[in-house]
Amino acid sequence: SDGEKKIRRFSCRLSDLASWENLWKAILGEFIGTFIMMYVGLGAILAQDELLYVALTWSLIMPVLISIFGKISQALFNPAITVVFWLLEDITLLQAIFSVFAQLLGSAAASALQLQLWPLDTRKPYYDGCTFNVPIGDKSGTQRGLINEVVTTCILVFLLLSLTHRGPTAELQHPQTLLVAMAVGATIFCMVMVGAPISGASLNPARSFGPSLVANYWDDHWVFWAGPIIGALLGMSIWYTFVRKVYITEEKKDS
Amino acid sequence: SDGEKKIRRFSCRLSDLASWENLWKAILGEFIGTFIMMYVGLGAILAQDELLYVALTWSLIMPVLISIFGKISQALFNPAITVVFWLLEDITLLQAIFSVFAQLLGSAAASALQLQLWPLDTRKPYYDGCTFNVPIGDKSGTQRGLINEVVTTCILVFLLLSLTHRGPTAELQHPQTLLVAMAVGATIFCMVMVGAPISGASLNPARSFGPSLVANYWDDHWVFWAGPIIGALLGMSIWYTFVRKVYITEEKKDS
Amino acid sequence: SDGEKKIRRFSCRLSDLASWENLWKAILGEFIGTFIMMYVGLGAILAQDELLYVALTWSLIMPVLISIFGKISQALFNPAITVVFWLLEDITLLQAIFSVFAQLLGSAAASALQLQLWPLDTRKPYYDGCTFNVPIGDKSGTQRGLINEVVTTCILVFLLLSLTHRGPTAELQHPQTLLVAMAVGATIFCMVMVGAPISGASLNPARSFGPSLVANYWDDHWVFWAGPIIGALLGMSIWYTFVRKVYITEEKKDS
Amino acid sequence: SDGEKKIRRFSCRLSDLASWENLWKAILGEFIGTFIMMYVGLGAILAQDELLYVALTWSLIMPVLISIFGKISQALFNPAITVVFWLLEDITLLQAIFSVFAQLLGSAAASALQLQLWPLDTRKPYYDGCTFNVPIGDKSGTQRGLINEVVTTCILVFLLLSLTHRGPTAELQHPQTLLVAMAVGATIFCMVMVGAPISGASLNPARSFGPSLVANYWDDHWVFWAGPIIGALLGMSIWYTFVRKVYITEEKKDS
Repeated sequence: SDGEKKIRRFSCRLSDLASWENLWKAILGEFIGTFIMMYVGLGAILAQDELLYVALTWSLIMPVLISIFGKISQALFNPAITVVFWLLEDITLLQAIFSVFAQLLGSAAASALQLQLWPLDTRKPYYDGCTFNVPIGDKSGTQRGLINEVVTTCILVFLLLSLTHRGPTAELQHPQTLLVAMAVGATIFCMVMVGAPISGASLNPARSFGPSLVANYWDDHWVFWAGPIIGALLGMSIWYTFVRKVYITEEKKDS
Repeated sequence: SDGEKKIRRFSCRLSDLASWENLWKAILGEFIGTFIMMYVGLGAILAQDELLYVALTWSLIMPVLISIFGKISQALFNPAITVVFWLLEDITLLQAIFSVFAQLLGSAAASALQLQLWPLDTRKPYYDGCTFNVPIGDKSGTQRGLINEVVTTCILVFLLLSLTHRGPTAELQHPQTLLVAMAVGATIFCMVMVGAPISGASLNPARSFGPSLVANYWDDHWVFWAGPIIGALLGMSIWYTFVRKVYITEEKKDS
Repeated sequence: SDGEKKIRRFSCRLSDLASWENLWKAILGEFIGTFIMMYVGLGAILAQDELLYVALTWSLIMPVLISIFGKISQALFNPAITVVFWLLEDITLLQAIFSVFAQLLGSAAASALQLQLWPLDTRKPYYDGCTFNVPIGDKSGTQRGLINEVVTTCILVFLLLSLTHRGPTAELQHPQTLLVAMAVGATIFCMVMVGAPISGASLNPARSFGPSLVANYWDDHWVFWAGPIIGALLGMSIWYTFVRKVYITEEKKDS
Repeated sequence: SDGEKKIRRFSCRLSDLASWENLWKAILGEFIGTFIMMYVGLGAILAQDELLYVALTWSLIMPVLISIFGKISQALFNPAITVVFWLLEDITLLQAIFSVFAQLLGSAAASALQLQLWPLDTRKPYYDGCTFNVPIGDKSGTQRGLINEVVTTCILVFLLLSLTHRGPTAELQHPQTLLVAMAVGATIFCMVMVGAPISGASLNPARSFGPSLVANYWDDHWVFWAGPIIGALLGMSIWYTFVRKVYITEEKKDS
């Protein structure tokens, strides 16, 4: 998309002020987007006891945020996906690093605000390490949790890239982007259904970081960094070697 | 959109009869739209005990109403959003004032009709101050309720304006508007999930006014005026200073 | 749409064999469509005890059927809506009469097939007069049930016509029709949520006829003919005098 | 679609290396797609006790997979549908045979991976013959189960072909295909609601094969081959003699 190229151009010419503005907008976009994602997603977890309510909320807020922030900041909201987009050269290293900080900050700020509405002493389990239902305490639990985070993030990233990185998609305008974003939301719903009872289905280090920080609870926190990042790299690799080739070949034949 | 400009032109020339007709249509549209919204939304609350049923009903009826009444009356149905659209000069002050009256009247009429199907003595809690689950009775509850109404309406209005006030959207035709309206419905679902247990997630003074009137219950009613209006102004400000600029800049570069 | 005009032309020239073929297709389409609607919708009622499951099933199968049978038979599946389309001259009287017979036959056939899977002695309440939860037995219940059927069908038909009978919609192609049909499905979901506990939310004489026939249960059956037909006529009138004018005026100004 | 024709061309000229590549991609696509479908769908069954969660997961993952793999492998993921597409000459016999093997392999691999997260001794009923709720053990149960699999697969294939095999659809681009795929997902949701309590609503031999293999449970397994295949052939026949003709006639008149 246009925003993409503008920011990439910035990596070449640091003197280009317009690009600095774009970078600043992208970072601020990541902060606001992750803040809303976490305020809404964590809020649903704190306010509702029912997994379906939580899963639907996550799967419905994400398409809205993706369609709004897609052209502003690539709508990453997730350090694991940020790494993938940097490796695919969709964003520069500088934007990637700043984006991760903005995501962690947005997650922490939203968690702190929710703490005012749902104090820690009444809702402690919901702030603890991003697990809704089952804490991954013992060794076997940690291992299952790690496998779960790896596989679900792998599937998420594979499907996400297959949906968004297609030739004809590049020219998508609002509101067509909403349809693609809805498919991403549907994927997130499925991953929560499959993974929530095992490890809470974080899929996102930033999503786990904020609640862990305000609750000062760090048991097994590394799982929610290692799992999603390993899974995202795996999902990207499968997409890169298989699906990407298909569409590149097709585009060549079209033109 | 066309309807927008026609009505704005009316504010200049009061002698333009065609515009008077448009204004009348807009007011009647706000009445009918708010009546259906309240008959359906309040009806679901009265008929069902399950929050999910209520949240889904609100989030599914709104896109239908928005796509139908968008070109007739801007599909406001909410005094807080009416204020925002007036400040953004999407509607004149006269249309804004009449719209709010039509919304309150529509809400009251729908509540009165539901009262025939679900008498007050059997369903009193559901008519009381728009709270489904938790009455905000004590001081601390009122404060949490106000914060909740402010933040959720702020997010709603920020996302709503980001979705609907975009350059290319202006030319959207039916049924593309439905996709954008569905995203608004998805946002409403999320806000209900986050806010219902705290203050009933009104987000809309007209939504609270009707049931309060037929039940003659006014405790904490001011929260459902102050909260949504403050939140809407906040959401508009964040949108105005951040997202609006992004798309204006982009449009300039496109043309 | 094209199919519409072809059939209307038929009403003028009875010798036009191609039109006889179109009429035959339309009648067969109403039979197959109503059969699938009833097999799926009644099947969900028989198989599931949860209202949400039933409401989602109805609201998801209808858009699929509407988008498929729209160009074949106008996708009526409902005697009350058939009357409305005849009054609006979308179909001829002949097509209307045959369509109603096909709908009743399709509903009866689907109910008879479901009877093989869910015998009457185990699932009697679900076949009785289309009420899922609350039978409308006493006088007061019948009155509330009638009001409920009138108002919900009125809203359904008002929203349905507002969604489908719009200038630009006429040229809609697959899959854009799916978006409009989804909005109709969303409306049906809302009507079920509002009306199911009062009268089962039939909204459709054909929907009530089939199960009543196989169960030989006719108490209050007239409510499910009078209610939807009165409501449909009311909804059409409001649409005709208000929304239709708006879009006609707009189209004139466009051309 | 393009991919379709390329593969069909391959059936004529075996020396065309590019087509061998397309065939290989199609087979690999069926493996990956069925693997994700089964990992997600079976995973939801294993992780959740609630039918709604399972039905929503299946109905949301399918549109994503169909829109991604449609141009790669026709997104079959189902031996019964593979037979239909072969009879309709959408795929060659060679592709059909390899696709079925890839589907069975993908289903088995996903079931084996889920076995690591949810061991057989804790979740045995969920691996047994694809029934979530009600085992079809006695004679009467088997007969009802067979009827159920036949009728639901018949409706699924009839609606699927009516949605996807339409003139104007052929040129559909991403993300418009998503809308059609969503309608397929909605149909699957409805079939699960109608059929799950009777026979688990498999609709797909590959879906039943994987879990049966890892649990080494083969009681009534033939039902999940015979039922879906008979139903699919029935659904195709009804579509072929009725709906297909309508659109072919229409296209001729258009051109």
